[in-house]
Amino acid sequence: MNPDDARLLATLIRKERIAHLATLRDGVPMASMTLYLPAPDFSAFYVHVSRLAWHTQDMQRDGHVALSIAETDDRRADPFRLMRVSIRGTASVFSDEDSEIRNAYLAKYPEQAINFTLADFSFWRIEPKDARFIAGFGRIHNVSAEELKRVAG
Amino acid sequence: MNPDDARLLATLIRKERIAHLATLRDGVPMASMTLYLPAPDFSAFYVHVSRLAWHTQDMQRDGHVALSIAETDDRRADPFRLMRVSIRGTASVFSDEDSEIRNAYLAKYPEQAINFTLADFSFWRIEPKDARFIAGFGRIHNVSAEELKRVAG
Repeated sequence: MNPDDARLLATLIRKERIAHLATLRDGVPMASMTLYLPAPDFSAFYVHVSRLAWHTQDMQRDGHVALSIAETDDRRADPFRLMRVSIRGTASVFSDEDSEIRNAYLAKYPEQAINFTLADFSFWRIEPKDARFIAGFGRIHNVSAEELKRVAG
Repeated sequence: MNPDDARLLATLIRKERIAHLATLRDGVPMASMTLYLPAPDFSAFYVHVSRLAWHTQDMQRDGHVALSIAETDDRRADPFRLMRVSIRGTASVFSDEDSEIRNAYLAKYPEQAINFTLADFSFWRIEPKDARFIAGFGRIHNVSAEELKRVAG
């Protein structure tokens, strides 16, 4: 990937707050909104979810997931030009013993503090296998997990 | 569903332009951004996609999909309060002979006219099986395809 698009991808991942999480449910694809926190080196993506949420139940059964993150719709004339990235990976439940992830998550989402007092919420860690970044028309990049770390800078 | 939340769901589906489409790829979930057009009665959701796109290739192999639509992130303190809906359904390629769908699509996305001149783009029709609407904290609604049509008003 050229350095300009690499910078755009890093900014997209760090700036946005909303991801749509694809999971397998009853053998077919499901997608639902979640919040996410990227590790500083993009080696992992964390979601803090309730056991009551369908996607959590899905991940408990099958850790194969994908995260889709798009630039916020600014009502530009052509929304097809919004940048977006799909990250495929494997999710596993993550116990935040040292609170580093928790602190970073709360710095990004301070209003989520209440959910850390609820027993049914836990972190899941999604380890990327690869990503597909659409920076613009004809600017499509398939990105390995290793290249994603280089993109993080 | 109560009338207030039904109105919120109809507004969400009609106002937003971006959906994230979950497909099955190599046996595992994939998610990627797309534009969408709801039928006026929410009996179908149309996407106009290129055969070169991964999600199109996926739908050709397996029509089970889900669309995830969220309220645009307005940078509110707690993005977990953004409304969102997941629609599960079956996708099939759709030949727009009478141009009714095409006209509605172009009214919503005028800049997409160029893609109707390209041979590799086609409409896909997603017929909903059900939906799950999260209107706010504790306001979660499982919605049948029939109820979704009533929500359309």
